[in-house]
Amino acid sequence: MIEIRNIAQDKPHELFIKYYDEALKAKQSSINAISISSFDFEKNEVESRFVNLKYIIEDKWIFFTNYGSPKAQAFNKHKQICALLFWDSINTQIRIKGKIRRTSTSFSDKHFVGRQPEKNALAISSNQSRKIDSYEDVLKNFEYIKENSDLTKRPIYWGGFEFIPYYFEFWEGKKNRLNKREVFEYKENDWINFILEP
Amino acid sequence: MIEIRNIAQDKPHELFIKYYDEALKAKQSSINAISISSFDFEKNEVESRFVNLKYIIEDKWIFFTNYGSPKAQAFNKHKQICALLFWDSINTQIRIKGKIRRTSTSFSDKHFVGRQPEKNALAISSNQSRKIDSYEDVLKNFEYIKENSDLTKRPIYWGGFEFIPYYFEFWEGKKNRLNKREVFEYKENDWINFILEP
Repeated sequence: MIEIRNIAQDKPHELFIKYYDEALKAKQSSINAISISSFDFEKNEVESRFVNLKYIIEDKWIFFTNYGSPKAQAFNKHKQICALLFWDSINTQIRIKGKIRRTSTSFSDKHFVGRQPEKNALAISSNQSRKIDSYEDVLKNFEYIKENSDLTKRPIYWGGFEFIPYYFEFWEGKKNRLNKREVFEYKENDWINFILEP
Repeated sequence: MIEIRNIAQDKPHELFIKYYDEALKAKQSSINAISISSFDFEKNEVESRFVNLKYIIEDKWIFFTNYGSPKAQAFNKHKQICALLFWDSINTQIRIKGKIRRTSTSFSDKHFVGRQPEKNALAISSNQSRKIDSYEDVLKNFEYIKENSDLTKRPIYWGGFEFIPYYFEFWEGKKNRLNKREVFEYKENDWINFILEP
């Protein structure tokens, strides 16, 4: 589930909610799994990974990660990202382009306190995406932190990112690939709307 | 289903097959839906979309598209892509980075002939991702082509792309986010292998 609060009252967000409700009704698994693609300016490489979308608040789409992770570093140099949802229970793909930035520290603090202690132990103990000698070391670090740390205190190297969409494509798969594709693009303070060939 | 022929006899492709067989056994839906992320050099933007992975032949991963589409144009200027699979039935994500190029025209021809005539009518009739006035026009073009074209003759603007991986990450979701992450990177004619913190 995605926690949705005061979502923006515009066409693309309204349409998003319509599809989201349909996918919920169809019991879509992993409904909040969203692919985030970024451009690593240093390596000149595109990279993608799934994250859990936790909140949509107004027009901000929010997930959490380690601020030292490769994706966090990529966001610093290239703030544009592409987010992708695919709900096969309703054969619908949603593509979003947006600009990304950190959430406020107070927002991250509040979210951290509400999480399960075990998840926080991992957030504290893991240098996300660093090479490590063995999975056993991961478990050992985790157990040590779980017993010896304040699991309600957010470490400064962990927190939220929020992206604000400027482009949506809603893609519905149809028979014979006659797919329906509707685009909303934010231009000059307004959403313009058009359809694309399948 | 992905059609797999003479797959490369190396560690990451072997591991891929292991997970693929597990996902098949778990009746993963949309098993060949793969996100392809590219960098559009002109627009300075990352873009992602799902495609159907049709073949893995040796170390080539193959899908088909319109050669005039935005993604095909992006591949011309920036040949590195990121491919992403998420099979929630086995809670496994596979991230691949590779270099992309067109398949041979003879390979595209052969694949085109074997497809359903209706899909070919759409491949011929659609200027993929161009703006269009109405979905009704899409249907009209499609019906016209279906009745009036040779549906076995591949149009030059439609065909395959193949990417050759140089990086794999196999990610298995575990309790408390103690995820297992194993990486294979192709360097100096060999695959090196290491694990990452969760």
